[in-house]
Amino acid sequence: MTPIIFLLAFLVSTINSHVAAIDFCVADVKAGVTSVGYPCKSPSKVTVDDFVFSNFTNGPPNQFNFSFTPADVENFPALNGLGFSFAKVELEEGATVPMHAHPDATEVVIAGSGPAKYTTGFITSDNVVYTKTLTEGDIFVIPKGLLHFGFNSGKGKASGVTLFGSGKPSIQVLDLALFGNNLDSSIVEKTTFLDAAQVKKLKALFKGSG
Amino acid sequence: MTPIIFLLAFLVSTINSHVAAIDFCVADVKAGVTSVGYPCKSPSKVTVDDFVFSNFTNGPPNQFNFSFTPADVENFPALNGLGFSFAKVELEEGATVPMHAHPDATEVVIAGSGPAKYTTGFITSDNVVYTKTLTEGDIFVIPKGLLHFGFNSGKGKASGVTLFGSGKPSIQVLDLALFGNNLDSSIVEKTTFLDAAQVKKLKALFKGSG
Amino acid sequence: MTPIIFLLAFLVSTINSHVAAIDFCVADVKAGVTSVGYPCKSPSKVTVDDFVFSNFTNGPPNQFNFSFTPADVENFPALNGLGFSFAKVELEEGATVPMHAHPDATEVVIAGSGPAKYTTGFITSDNVVYTKTLTEGDIFVIPKGLLHFGFNSGKGKASGVTLFGSGKPSIQVLDLALFGNNLDSSIVEKTTFLDAAQVKKLKALFKGSG
Amino acid sequence: MTPIIFLLAFLVSTINSHVAAIDFCVADVKAGVTSVGYPCKSPSKVTVDDFVFSNFTNGPPNQFNFSFTPADVENFPALNGLGFSFAKVELEEGATVPMHAHPDATEVVIAGSGPAKYTTGFITSDNVVYTKTLTEGDIFVIPKGLLHFGFNSGKGKASGVTLFGSGKPSIQVLDLALFGNNLDSSIVEKTTFLDAAQVKKLKALFKGSG
Amino acid sequence: MTPIIFLLAFLVSTINSHVAAIDFCVADVKAGVTSVGYPCKSPSKVTVDDFVFSNFTNGPPNQFNFSFTPADVENFPALNGLGFSFAKVELEEGATVPMHAHPDATEVVIAGSGPAKYTTGFITSDNVVYTKTLTEGDIFVIPKGLLHFGFNSGKGKASGVTLFGSGKPSIQVLDLALFGNNLDSSIVEKTTFLDAAQVKKLKALFKGSG
Amino acid sequence: MTPIIFLLAFLVSTINSHVAAIDFCVADVKAGVTSVGYPCKSPSKVTVDDFVFSNFTNGPPNQFNFSFTPADVENFPALNGLGFSFAKVELEEGATVPMHAHPDATEVVIAGSGPAKYTTGFITSDNVVYTKTLTEGDIFVIPKGLLHFGFNSGKGKASGVTLFGSGKPSIQVLDLALFGNNLDSSIVEKTTFLDAAQVKKLKALFKGSG
Repeated sequence: MTPIIFLLAFLVSTINSHVAAIDFCVADVKAGVTSVGYPCKSPSKVTVDDFVFSNFTNGPPNQFNFSFTPADVENFPALNGLGFSFAKVELEEGATVPMHAHPDATEVVIAGSGPAKYTTGFITSDNVVYTKTLTEGDIFVIPKGLLHFGFNSGKGKASGVTLFGSGKPSIQVLDLALFGNNLDSSIVEKTTFLDAAQVKKLKALFKGSG
Repeated sequence: MTPIIFLLAFLVSTINSHVAAIDFCVADVKAGVTSVGYPCKSPSKVTVDDFVFSNFTNGPPNQFNFSFTPADVENFPALNGLGFSFAKVELEEGATVPMHAHPDATEVVIAGSGPAKYTTGFITSDNVVYTKTLTEGDIFVIPKGLLHFGFNSGKGKASGVTLFGSGKPSIQVLDLALFGNNLDSSIVEKTTFLDAAQVKKLKALFKGSG
Repeated sequence: MTPIIFLLAFLVSTINSHVAAIDFCVADVKAGVTSVGYPCKSPSKVTVDDFVFSNFTNGPPNQFNFSFTPADVENFPALNGLGFSFAKVELEEGATVPMHAHPDATEVVIAGSGPAKYTTGFITSDNVVYTKTLTEGDIFVIPKGLLHFGFNSGKGKASGVTLFGSGKPSIQVLDLALFGNNLDSSIVEKTTFLDAAQVKKLKALFKGSG
Repeated sequence: MTPIIFLLAFLVSTINSHVAAIDFCVADVKAGVTSVGYPCKSPSKVTVDDFVFSNFTNGPPNQFNFSFTPADVENFPALNGLGFSFAKVELEEGATVPMHAHPDATEVVIAGSGPAKYTTGFITSDNVVYTKTLTEGDIFVIPKGLLHFGFNSGKGKASGVTLFGSGKPSIQVLDLALFGNNLDSSIVEKTTFLDAAQVKKLKALFKGSG
Repeated sequence: MTPIIFLLAFLVSTINSHVAAIDFCVADVKAGVTSVGYPCKSPSKVTVDDFVFSNFTNGPPNQFNFSFTPADVENFPALNGLGFSFAKVELEEGATVPMHAHPDATEVVIAGSGPAKYTTGFITSDNVVYTKTLTEGDIFVIPKGLLHFGFNSGKGKASGVTLFGSGKPSIQVLDLALFGNNLDSSIVEKTTFLDAAQVKKLKALFKGSG
Repeated sequence: MTPIIFLLAFLVSTINSHVAAIDFCVADVKAGVTSVGYPCKSPSKVTVDDFVFSNFTNGPPNQFNFSFTPADVENFPALNGLGFSFAKVELEEGATVPMHAHPDATEVVIAGSGPAKYTTGFITSDNVVYTKTLTEGDIFVIPKGLLHFGFNSGKGKASGVTLFGSGKPSIQVLDLALFGNNLDSSIVEKTTFLDAAQVKKLKALFKGSG
């Protein structure tokens, strides 16, 4: 049996140094981010809990009757460098997700259990609307960067898990982009064709200035 | 108002030709596959149903008490070129998912609802075992290419959705790779250190020859 | 000198077959497009004119006093696989480029000659506005996927060349996406917080239905 | 209206932390460079001027009657990670750009205004010469890594903007590579087939030794 | 001749700052690793020896009559960011390389000189065995992530050079993964279908516990 | 034992369709090439010989006493999509490899056995020469796109294997690019600073016109 023990020693010595860093690159989120993500946490400090996200349950709904819980590279560092992340969404009856886009991420919605229905849709760059009412067991793909929306169109809660094709997707909410900042109202008006009164009303609502 | 109508005409004419193909590339699965996926289906033939996968419900469990339903680029062509796909898994009480690896895909398990528990784990290339018993609302990352396994360790059914970092992940099941083909038994023995009797027994079980 | 002639023969024979295809991949635009562009035109059919785009001069301005001339992979096949394309823009005095986004392309504006000024800006996903009035010799970067706009803020014409980080960028014009199709008005209203009268007015203007 | 204010609070709190870093990665050029560029500057330190390059005007011509002004990731940090950069070139009448190559960048020349003509060309790896005399409004693609050259072939100044498919392209000028360093003359001679006298003359001219 | 001296000065000043970093990115292995490799060593500290690996000769064979010498990014920093590395292997007569996989690297074996033969093979995810006995001058491709093996099937030594499609490939040796750690024996048994006695025997041999 | 037989049936049916295409993409070289390589050969037509290259032995030396045998994607289709290829080189005593560059490929030289020495070098874009005389067991990295050369500087044959970071590298030989085509002599002269007599002599030697 001696030979095999030697083999073991040989192979272990060959592969033990830094080797875990080869299999994965758990984010060291305290280090600076780069255009390709975070540096790798030292393998000696990685534990099984780095690969588990245990907070993926929704809190109470907000005033709009929906809750949103992200699981992305910043709170789930095992996702570093993988190019995707998750979120859990739960909409109370009647809730609406406002028009928005993810500037650099595809979104995939996996409709959860229950009798409620989730109606969602996206608009392409040639202005075609693709909309669908999802029921339990449906998956829906929203291509990268396009404006899209959703609302609970059934009775009771509508829930789902979403996948984003980015480790930390950004969200551009249309109304906040137009009315929730100091962009000059005259610029909003002439670049969106909205009436001045409408811009003023929504600037007030979304606490924008200008 | 004339000017805006002209703007409309101008912009629409600019962006209408082939434009949907820019926003997405739904697979034309009848065409030949390449190392980067399928050619794009003509946008004029794409409908909203190309973006919806509606069969994501499990069939009855197999003899081992688990069912597995893939949603990948071949049955859900909107996933073409996106680099990920899904599967739904449901394990009856006591079911086991045998030791296997995905040669070129990370796997992420999202534990489903219910009282059951799913115990899963992977083994790194320096032979460290990372194992965890998941409950509802847990997510677990299995790095690319590593041997891993799972079993229902609780009472009742355990279900979940898995994400794979590949549009069409392959699955290398250890026992099928070693015993389910014509690989010469003497080669299996000397490269795995298994006893000849053990190899013979499993070759018989998995219908291998050699 | 014989040896060198032999060298020549040797090297030429080694490198002549298909070699041009190695140096470049001019698009065969009649073949089907894939998620990574077009197949390569046969090198034997490639001429110097495939590398030259000679139509990059603006036509007369449209009703809005601006013209837009793209040079992308579909009319300039040498750009195939390179990941960028161009456009020439010329705005008459007072012209406005409406609010829009490029779902998967960075844009870079290179301000052209002349006394006129071009004011442009983009809005980030945390709703910060970055805006600047450009003069001749300025370059401005608009990050991928974000809403942005522009207008001629000076006297006389404002012209420029734009680079897009895509061989065939798509353009999502906000008003056309919201009002230029059959998206149900009630959905527009609840997902944008716009008043019904405003939606109705712009639906009429942009010839949308629903 | 209360609900919308809550929505605002909800969304803003969700998206505000680090969010600008998601939309862009402006180079922190003082930090060390990696094979994929620079780390991202902290979003809180980014201003609109990071997205503007305002020095893109040529200085006086050099002794050869041309000027060259780069706008790359080192002086225009918004280009970090984008994979392209720019330069402005102006050739006085009769000026020549010597034979050179960009080891890892495609080049695109956009011919500027004026009556002058710019003649440029590249040589493929099967030794075919593609050459063209450009006039205002022409674009010319020079594939990655190939030897190429240019000269003002008309009357008056010839100017243009060049795009490089690299955030910081390198330039290998043939004569400097062969004659402007300490490469042993005998090696130059036998690997280029140039006569010793010619090598000696150009070594003297370009201040090489050896 | 003055003009050319000025050209020289012009061009050298343009291209000298940081320029070596553009041509290559030699690893600074003392800095932290990221998912895309190491930061670049300062060009001023790079010498020709960074591009040379001089230790690529095998030591004495181990107890199993084979030796393995890696040349990867950690001991040959010029490989940083290139996506490949090398190893030299020498098998004495009768030696066996045990069943293993490289979780994220293709392997290519280049059979070395000598009368000996090297028999190698891999198993696909549909359980097909591709096996071949190589002689001097043969190259063999083992696709990424698949189980594979090898043994010296001839007389005398068998040697070769292997290329890996990774700057630092990891190695998952089947027996060490199953039996060389603390993975519970009952889990090994039910996920591999091996008999308890076989698992116990190999756990003892490979010094595993559990 | 029945359950396991069912498992087998279950798993095999799940994974058998098209699965080999997932593990590899052997080139169908008769189909048209794209910017990312060839389409995949149907897995049912792939045999073990597709993974073996058996012609990797040098023919007789040419008039310059060296031979060059490529193993690239066109004669070894298993390399499709992998991003690298090989060549075998053998230089008789005194042989020289002329100054050349690979426009889009890193080269790595692995010095072969024997007493002879191979002297090689490359020139960076800031005109620094990195040169080294290799002996058996040395590896040398030549960064992408840079001019480089080599010669047998010892007694007897010098041989080696080269790796290229491209499935089908192109080769731009300096003298053939300058003198082996119809590039106008006056253009060669003014863009290279070579004397007219030198250009004429080498144009004659390399059979160029112009």
